[in-house]
Amino acid sequence: MSTHNKKRSRKTGLPPGTMVHIGEKKGDAVKISVIDYSEAEFKELVTHDAEACFPFRESPTVTWINVDGISRIDVLERLGACYNLHPLVMEDIVNSNQRPKKEDYGDYLYIVLRMLVYSEQKKEIVSEQVSIVLGRNFVISFQEGLEGDAFNPIRERLRNSKGITRKMGADYLAYSLLDAIVDNYFNILETIGERIELLEDELVGNPTKKTLTDLHNLKSDVIFLRKSIWPVRDVIGSLERRESPLITDAVILYLRDLYDHAVQIIDTIETFRDMLSSMLDIYLSSISNRTNEAMKVLTVIATIFMPLTFIVGVYGMNFKHMPELEWKWAYPAVWLVMIFTGGSMYLYFKRRKWF
Amino acid sequence: MSTHNKKRSRKTGLPPGTMVHIGEKKGDAVKISVIDYSEAEFKELVTHDAEACFPFRESPTVTWINVDGISRIDVLERLGACYNLHPLVMEDIVNSNQRPKKEDYGDYLYIVLRMLVYSEQKKEIVSEQVSIVLGRNFVISFQEGLEGDAFNPIRERLRNSKGITRKMGADYLAYSLLDAIVDNYFNILETIGERIELLEDELVGNPTKKTLTDLHNLKSDVIFLRKSIWPVRDVIGSLERRESPLITDAVILYLRDLYDHAVQIIDTIETFRDMLSSMLDIYLSSISNRTNEAMKVLTVIATIFMPLTFIVGVYGMNFKHMPELEWKWAYPAVWLVMIFTGGSMYLYFKRRKWF
Amino acid sequence: MSTHNKKRSRKTGLPPGTMVHIGEKKGDAVKISVIDYSEAEFKELVTHDAEACFPFRESPTVTWINVDGISRIDVLERLGACYNLHPLVMEDIVNSNQRPKKEDYGDYLYIVLRMLVYSEQKKEIVSEQVSIVLGRNFVISFQEGLEGDAFNPIRERLRNSKGITRKMGADYLAYSLLDAIVDNYFNILETIGERIELLEDELVGNPTKKTLTDLHNLKSDVIFLRKSIWPVRDVIGSLERRESPLITDAVILYLRDLYDHAVQIIDTIETFRDMLSSMLDIYLSSISNRTNEAMKVLTVIATIFMPLTFIVGVYGMNFKHMPELEWKWAYPAVWLVMIFTGGSMYLYFKRRKWF
Amino acid sequence: MSTHNKKRSRKTGLPPGTMVHIGEKKGDAVKISVIDYSEAEFKELVTHDAEACFPFRESPTVTWINVDGISRIDVLERLGACYNLHPLVMEDIVNSNQRPKKEDYGDYLYIVLRMLVYSEQKKEIVSEQVSIVLGRNFVISFQEGLEGDAFNPIRERLRNSKGITRKMGADYLAYSLLDAIVDNYFNILETIGERIELLEDELVGNPTKKTLTDLHNLKSDVIFLRKSIWPVRDVIGSLERRESPLITDAVILYLRDLYDHAVQIIDTIETFRDMLSSMLDIYLSSISNRTNEAMKVLTVIATIFMPLTFIVGVYGMNFKHMPELEWKWAYPAVWLVMIFTGGSMYLYFKRRKWF
Amino acid sequence: MSTHNKKRSRKTGLPPGTMVHIGEKKGDAVKISVIDYSEAEFKELVTHDAEACFPFRESPTVTWINVDGISRIDVLERLGACYNLHPLVMEDIVNSNQRPKKEDYGDYLYIVLRMLVYSEQKKEIVSEQVSIVLGRNFVISFQEGLEGDAFNPIRERLRNSKGITRKMGADYLAYSLLDAIVDNYFNILETIGERIELLEDELVGNPTKKTLTDLHNLKSDVIFLRKSIWPVRDVIGSLERRESPLITDAVILYLRDLYDHAVQIIDTIETFRDMLSSMLDIYLSSISNRTNEAMKVLTVIATIFMPLTFIVGVYGMNFKHMPELEWKWAYPAVWLVMIFTGGSMYLYFKRRKWF
Repeated sequence: MSTHNKKRSRKTGLPPGTMVHIGEKKGDAVKISVIDYSEAEFKELVTHDAEACFPFRESPTVTWINVDGISRIDVLERLGACYNLHPLVMEDIVNSNQRPKKEDYGDYLYIVLRMLVYSEQKKEIVSEQVSIVLGRNFVISFQEGLEGDAFNPIRERLRNSKGITRKMGADYLAYSLLDAIVDNYFNILETIGERIELLEDELVGNPTKKTLTDLHNLKSDVIFLRKSIWPVRDVIGSLERRESPLITDAVILYLRDLYDHAVQIIDTIETFRDMLSSMLDIYLSSISNRTNEAMKVLTVIATIFMPLTFIVGVYGMNFKHMPELEWKWAYPAVWLVMIFTGGSMYLYFKRRKWF
Repeated sequence: MSTHNKKRSRKTGLPPGTMVHIGEKKGDAVKISVIDYSEAEFKELVTHDAEACFPFRESPTVTWINVDGISRIDVLERLGACYNLHPLVMEDIVNSNQRPKKEDYGDYLYIVLRMLVYSEQKKEIVSEQVSIVLGRNFVISFQEGLEGDAFNPIRERLRNSKGITRKMGADYLAYSLLDAIVDNYFNILETIGERIELLEDELVGNPTKKTLTDLHNLKSDVIFLRKSIWPVRDVIGSLERRESPLITDAVILYLRDLYDHAVQIIDTIETFRDMLSSMLDIYLSSISNRTNEAMKVLTVIATIFMPLTFIVGVYGMNFKHMPELEWKWAYPAVWLVMIFTGGSMYLYFKRRKWF
Repeated sequence: MSTHNKKRSRKTGLPPGTMVHIGEKKGDAVKISVIDYSEAEFKELVTHDAEACFPFRESPTVTWINVDGISRIDVLERLGACYNLHPLVMEDIVNSNQRPKKEDYGDYLYIVLRMLVYSEQKKEIVSEQVSIVLGRNFVISFQEGLEGDAFNPIRERLRNSKGITRKMGADYLAYSLLDAIVDNYFNILETIGERIELLEDELVGNPTKKTLTDLHNLKSDVIFLRKSIWPVRDVIGSLERRESPLITDAVILYLRDLYDHAVQIIDTIETFRDMLSSMLDIYLSSISNRTNEAMKVLTVIATIFMPLTFIVGVYGMNFKHMPELEWKWAYPAVWLVMIFTGGSMYLYFKRRKWF
Repeated sequence: MSTHNKKRSRKTGLPPGTMVHIGEKKGDAVKISVIDYSEAEFKELVTHDAEACFPFRESPTVTWINVDGISRIDVLERLGACYNLHPLVMEDIVNSNQRPKKEDYGDYLYIVLRMLVYSEQKKEIVSEQVSIVLGRNFVISFQEGLEGDAFNPIRERLRNSKGITRKMGADYLAYSLLDAIVDNYFNILETIGERIELLEDELVGNPTKKTLTDLHNLKSDVIFLRKSIWPVRDVIGSLERRESPLITDAVILYLRDLYDHAVQIIDTIETFRDMLSSMLDIYLSSISNRTNEAMKVLTVIATIFMPLTFIVGVYGMNFKHMPELEWKWAYPAVWLVMIFTGGSMYLYFKRRKWF
Repeated sequence: MSTHNKKRSRKTGLPPGTMVHIGEKKGDAVKISVIDYSEAEFKELVTHDAEACFPFRESPTVTWINVDGISRIDVLERLGACYNLHPLVMEDIVNSNQRPKKEDYGDYLYIVLRMLVYSEQKKEIVSEQVSIVLGRNFVISFQEGLEGDAFNPIRERLRNSKGITRKMGADYLAYSLLDAIVDNYFNILETIGERIELLEDELVGNPTKKTLTDLHNLKSDVIFLRKSIWPVRDVIGSLERRESPLITDAVILYLRDLYDHAVQIIDTIETFRDMLSSMLDIYLSSISNRTNEAMKVLTVIATIFMPLTFIVGVYGMNFKHMPELEWKWAYPAVWLVMIFTGGSMYLYFKRRKWF
């Protein structure tokens, strides 16, 4: 859980529209990479300065500004001012706690999603907020600076003019970014699916205390995933409903495909939830089962040996007048009685299928 | 679970519209069987080559192209190109992980469903993705190549001119395919219904650890079924709502009937879910019950024999000065005390109905 | 459960519209009873032959044809042909597995419901499918031939001209049939309500293994009821929404009343579900409680007698050099020690309120 | 539960619109109290006869007829005939099993609600059905004759001309009656809230078998409340939506307020349901916890004393050749061994925090 | 729970629109603070008297009247009369039990919310009802007088002319108040999130009885939060839907932002609910696990030592004719037998992984 909650209290009492960076600091510097392209042309630029992006503002070609790192509020502010972004948008970009959403500001669309990556080192899901601003001929994307970048394949395709991205407008680029993010969700689901399968085997085989802890962690992860991904469907759904002139017809079909992916992901998450709930019930039943087995062993042992111990105790008494003690066949007789008692107990439990 | 999850990660980073076969390989070869018919004519053809289908493209009769096996991407690509299928459609066809859906591309409808079969050998549900493309006078169906083919009865009927299929258009053929798939779901439900009944008898009779494992497997199966079948209702529902000119009025009535079947299947699945949840609770209660019974036996035995063993222990002590040891009637007296103690314990538990 | 599931697999692979009787055979013969009436006239006829009904086809009076037994497919087919019933309707009539539904075929409405009766002999709910076809001036009802007939009071009223049925049209007759079926649901609910109350008393008093089995059976029954009755609300709701010209305004008010009954029944079923879930939880808690009590008794007995048995064991040892054995007051001293030990244990548990 | 279910089976088979009193008989006599008022005039009358109400039928002033007791069907029938009430309305009035509902008969509205009172004597919730018929200038209310009358404050206000009731029309009077009923729900909720708080303290402190029974009863009560009150929201909501000309604009605002109360009541009931579910889980955990504690005590005692008892048993054996028995320091040595064994067991459990 | 329920019964029987203060008394005095501002002007006033507010009624500038304490009904009545507030509004203001809601009275909007604060002293969530009346150029807010005031930062901003509040109308002020309240919810959620994390660690580490109590309290808190906050979303949503002319376009954007916050808060609450449910299951499983472990220890000990104690008991018997007692190697032989018996038991359990 620890990484899933972020302090927002720091903002209480400030006027709306104030930019305060909320969230884990994932990097100090701001890295701005600009790609400007049309079918024929291609320009690429990496800078740390907002001002370097200003010239592209008026270019007729498609401009993609990717901002990596959101802690340098001054840089972001100048960039936002240049592209006329609303203070509330700027506030949401630096507050890395947003629920996935889409907002239509007329001249541009503001989209927030969460990029999820399963970190092999930390053995947990790490996440960053990705904000995408889609204007007539530009896309600005803001990342928190998580290591690894799901947008690299898109950059490659743009450079090599592979795929149709270079032929399409800014809306297709925005779609590509969304697609890259959603594709990553499938990877997360696969990892979780594998962890669930492993746990299932353990559950059936030999459930331990660790199984329970793993189940709980897995469930927390799925709850977190659900919270992060559930609203994505509505975001993409509302894009696909042709509500904004910024989305052209050619891209609608692709968005519909993306929407299907989102629905499929949510289906899978719900299935995981179902399975984990069921597994917790199985776990409890399984433990009860084992307690029951131990209980039966104990009961059988006690039921057989307690009467026997009592019998030998009787003839261990030191009374002067105990006629049996003198009898010649007393000792073998007692053995016979004990074997009969123990044996009949044993058969009784055997017949009741206690072991 | 193992067969229900498929690797999709292989696709991450590729541009949209790239055909990559995702899913278990269920066969290497592609088998294309073409049936071209009208009320009067009937032609049948089996080939491994996409080109053989091209001549039927322009025929006024209804053409049904059934493609068995989706791993030969080149063949599929040529077929798709001939019938002008959108790259996203081709991508979905080979990605055998689709959620059931219907998409309207104007000239044709693209429908994806999942064929489910209970494999008697593997003792589990096997499934394949079936894609159906319905055009004005053609139907193309894509199967993954699962053994056994639910479409054979339809082929028979076409050959023998039984039923009304030969008199109707391509939309009725598409309906027949959907009907064949949905009919198979009933068989799956029957199998599951029988397994549930068997488990219920076991639950009431003699629940074991295996019962629990069976319950869990059954629950996983139902969760998987639910995920696969639930969207089918909407798919058929949207077909039946006369939204596309490709569906004629004559077929609407049949689709409505099919829709009822889908609703009935979903009802049954929900009922199964309910019953399985309830059975898991019963199982847990049942185990607790048995632990309770063992517990009571143990408690009764211990409560009766522990005091008795203590008493005989007392007179097993070796003190020099123990006046009772010398008394003549001490031994029978001790027996009387013990019989009374044990008997009253026994009666006490009997009265409290502990056994 | 056993009677709630029916084999449908027999139909797989047949063309749509094929009449195959699916369901338990509840009788061999077909009994057709025809009642033809207007306010002034009344004719009654019982036959085994479809042809006997044909003359009534054109009569201006209201004709009610009640068919008892659906296994003689040939008879039904001829009847259906006479009244122009669609093959899909005929298929649904003989397939006694339908989900309650209403279908509008323009000239007539087709309504399917499930008649539920609690069989005192079998101690379970038995059910049959009732199909009602409502035309302009005729009603055809199909029953599976369950013993006892809920429609008898309606026949009586028609014969005696009691109530307003004779004055109203075919739609009122159809409403009367529906009302008779829904009224029977209330009886089922009462039976179940009584069984729940009995179980509640047992639960609080002395829960046994049988209580659990009863709970499970009751829950299965309620799940089955829910599945059978839930869609009835929508069926009646859609009739009441004046969508068909076959339903006159005079009958709408009665249908609204019937709709209220359906809603009330569903409310009650949901309440039963809630109560049974809660009762299963109570049962589990109750068993845990009793295990806990047995546990405490065992713990108290063991904690008191194990140390005492140890002490007497010590002085049962046969060492040569055990000075205590020679002491004069050793024996009473040991008794004092044991009484003190046992007593303080007893008081300790008493104070912790363990018994 | 016992008072919450009523026999309806008596009605099966009767034609619709037949008045049969269903429900507990809460009183034999019918008491009819008539209040006729305008801002200036006020007349009051108590009678046992329907005929006494007829003169008020045509008066221009507002007439409120309150009927206490619904078992005298003849009286009700004459009253209904005078005011042109539909047979289905009359049937619903005497069938005290109705789900809360509102029906618009054009000339009048028929509203059914359930009055709930917590009876201090019976320690349970008692209820009666209240039917309200609102016409242009009259209100007829039917009660089952439960002791205590929530409408008395309204009568007082009318007599004393307090509040604005005298200045308003029949719709405001009907609103006042509804308000009186809904206000009573708050009292029920308070009683239940208090019982929940008491149980919570018990749950945390010392849960017993009675706690479980109380929890179950409370849950049954909440389930019953929910069933009775849930539809009230829709009833009031549909009144407030200005659908009938009988409701004037001046009263809409008051109905909106009442609607808010209904929503708030349902919110609280849902919260109670949530809390009770949670409490049942807590109870089960709590019992498991205590079993666990007893288990640990038992295990500690057994683990310490069983080995010791074994050791003393060894030296209680009567073998001729047991060298240790002759050793001088054997007895103290055994004691040392036993103290060490017991002590280390004790320390082991202490360290594992078992007590 | 104790602070979450308030007595409403005191109101039963009173006519609608009667002002009765319901709720805990949080302070006796009424403190009225008036702020009147435009972009240029700023006036501030603190009084205990309603009359002091009257002059501001007609001022063209924005007037904010904040009333702290709602027990002095006479003062509130005069204030309400001056601003033409409807009696039902006045009733709701003093009845501090309202569900969050928005009501449109044409000239003004009436909004009720609940301010929630986590009291560090009481270790629980304390709450007060905040009523906001938004007119054309005035805002009246009513607080119950909880210590600490979330509105202070707004006052500061108005005084210092920070932010844009001074430039905007009364609707922006109302928005600011709502924003301040909703921002506080985030703080509450953080506190709860931290408590959940603490409990999670305990759950995995060493669950005790206190863990259970804490879990229950946390769950009660979340249920209470949910009830208080859930309707807030609809309140803000209906404000944002431009239904009232009192809300200007400039403020809509801010309300949309606020709406997102509300949705995010509800999401988080639902996530908490999920996690707590899951944690209760984990707790139960965890306790069962530990019982199971204790059970196994007990069973192992008993299974090893009961047979041994029986064996030594046998040779403690005092029969005259027990040949073994005379044998020379009998004693060591018995030891061998016992070591073998105990050892094989030990190995058996070791192999079955019981410890």
